[in-house]
Amino acid sequence: MSLELQCPVPQFDFDHINMGHGSGGILTHKLLKSGVFDVLKNPLLDQQHDGAILELKGKIAISTDSYVVSPIFFPGGNIGDLAINGTVNDLAMCGASARYLTLSFILEEGLAMTEFKDVLMSIRQAADQSGVQIVTGDTKVVQKGKGDKIFINTTGVGELHPTADIRHQRVEHGDVILLSGPIAAHGVAIMSLREGLEFETTVCSDTQSLKAPVLALLDSLGQDVHFLRDATRGGLASVLNELSEITVKGIHIHQKDLAIAEEVSGACEMLGLDPLYVANEGVFVAVVKAHRAEEALKVLQSFEACHSASIIGEIIADHPGKVVMKSKIGGSRVVNFLQGEQLPRIC
Amino acid sequence: MSLELQCPVPQFDFDHINMGHGSGGILTHKLLKSGVFDVLKNPLLDQQHDGAILELKGKIAISTDSYVVSPIFFPGGNIGDLAINGTVNDLAMCGASARYLTLSFILEEGLAMTEFKDVLMSIRQAADQSGVQIVTGDTKVVQKGKGDKIFINTTGVGELHPTADIRHQRVEHGDVILLSGPIAAHGVAIMSLREGLEFETTVCSDTQSLKAPVLALLDSLGQDVHFLRDATRGGLASVLNELSEITVKGIHIHQKDLAIAEEVSGACEMLGLDPLYVANEGVFVAVVKAHRAEEALKVLQSFEACHSASIIGEIIADHPGKVVMKSKIGGSRVVNFLQGEQLPRIC
Repeated sequence: MSLELQCPVPQFDFDHINMGHGSGGILTHKLLKSGVFDVLKNPLLDQQHDGAILELKGKIAISTDSYVVSPIFFPGGNIGDLAINGTVNDLAMCGASARYLTLSFILEEGLAMTEFKDVLMSIRQAADQSGVQIVTGDTKVVQKGKGDKIFINTTGVGELHPTADIRHQRVEHGDVILLSGPIAAHGVAIMSLREGLEFETTVCSDTQSLKAPVLALLDSLGQDVHFLRDATRGGLASVLNELSEITVKGIHIHQKDLAIAEEVSGACEMLGLDPLYVANEGVFVAVVKAHRAEEALKVLQSFEACHSASIIGEIIADHPGKVVMKSKIGGSRVVNFLQGEQLPRIC
Repeated sequence: MSLELQCPVPQFDFDHINMGHGSGGILTHKLLKSGVFDVLKNPLLDQQHDGAILELKGKIAISTDSYVVSPIFFPGGNIGDLAINGTVNDLAMCGASARYLTLSFILEEGLAMTEFKDVLMSIRQAADQSGVQIVTGDTKVVQKGKGDKIFINTTGVGELHPTADIRHQRVEHGDVILLSGPIAAHGVAIMSLREGLEFETTVCSDTQSLKAPVLALLDSLGQDVHFLRDATRGGLASVLNELSEITVKGIHIHQKDLAIAEEVSGACEMLGLDPLYVANEGVFVAVVKAHRAEEALKVLQSFEACHSASIIGEIIADHPGKVVMKSKIGGSRVVNFLQGEQLPRIC
């Protein structure tokens, strides 16, 4: 990813965020004018109204997420690009092409302006990379100790792909399950940082936009794509468990076909984490009609973001409501829902 | 407002929110299943996807706000109905009829489930009162001391009224300014609570939906409504200053025509607040073509929410970029932008 910044560098008047920046008065006004509006500049945002007027065609998808990741900067990204990619990806999982995003900050008093600026720049870059516009927003400030640097909410709207019909009700016995990339990178990147662990190779978050590969998959397979879901909080195991529970169908996966980077696997061992439950921010699961699976795999692998995509299993009639994994050494085990607390504030 | 609750009372398994409720695992799942989905129940939310698919006609308006009000319960409302009414009103100010809302929580570890439940019930009631559906959402949990009970983001989408063309560019010299109700109630309700002040009459927040009166105004006046804005953070003075600055036109208002409840006015004196700068959550400013002003006033006054609406001033050629107020005793003064910090975390 290029580090050249196309957007104007904001010229904030202050070193740190203070309560006045959230008062709705002259400081709020100055903060927006001296930085936010410049960085995020586009004709819709420039209206500076409390909302934006959009034109969208056909059916519309909407998705929201609040991001509270800690720490806010991590190898491979920060809370800013995470907040853009995450919501763009949630829309992709509905079969929609993200077009417009809203952006809402809850800033903690005392946040360094340099950090806020870096987050803003990443937001702009990630938005540009996904071809989305930030059209309206909000900024609130809470007292020191009542927040944690920055929380961001993004809500996205997009146009549904004309052939998309992504619903768990469409999942059938015999459908094939694809995984778009290697698992557990995001969670391991965050946890390594928190624990102060250093490895020979720094594990980077996989935060990235999945918009292009998903739209290409829908272009090629159309309604033969039955279900899509990104494997974020709770990891791959949670996505598969939710799917098996809601469909009351069995899911069979093969451990040998799950891609995982060697350094991520090693870090998981050191941290005592099962990579199946570790959050990803750029990996998704696709359930497709069996006879289109190889074609789907080729489409995904043609994208940098999904170059190590693989077929990992199938929907089965046995074990309704359960996820069963065949291990590398041949045995089978049930993969349960994540119990209790595992990785807080991972996104 | 009736206190009868039409929605099912949630049956939470826990007394307090813990970090596991935000992990994306079984506790997140249980929290949603044991309360949130029940209270907010509707066919779109029931899909339980990461996003929702909507059908909207014509041009679409979108608006977002994060709510961080403290304390979260106050006379006349709580953070839940505030978060619904606030976003519904922002859409109304774009000339749009709110239809769908997203709902995102950032919960602090240790939050009492009874408080969360009460907020959820208010959300449902307020959504029903405005005829909007919560279609998708998100729940995050942060450690004790990294948040403050509940922060809520709502993002709303709505259909633009067919005749609406609400833009500051349409504001003309001679236009008349209407105010929909008495000012400063919300801010005073919050500040009295924070300061532990008691008055003979408890000042209640004016949090309420402005959707119906605004749509009626647009039905009657059509394109003769030039500009709308609710007077939230920073109060009436901020709305008028932003408008005069961006239009580079003068604004002239008459203090005698500003409605304010006696107890609110008294509380402002005790608290040392200028009511012009105090936040409202159910009051808006409308700028209309002069010859339609009386008609606009009648439309507004026919609604309970706006029964004390008044004509407060006009757009003038003099004093471009300034707000000038003629005081009750006859002199005139410039009403400036709010300086620095005044009322933090009022919404």
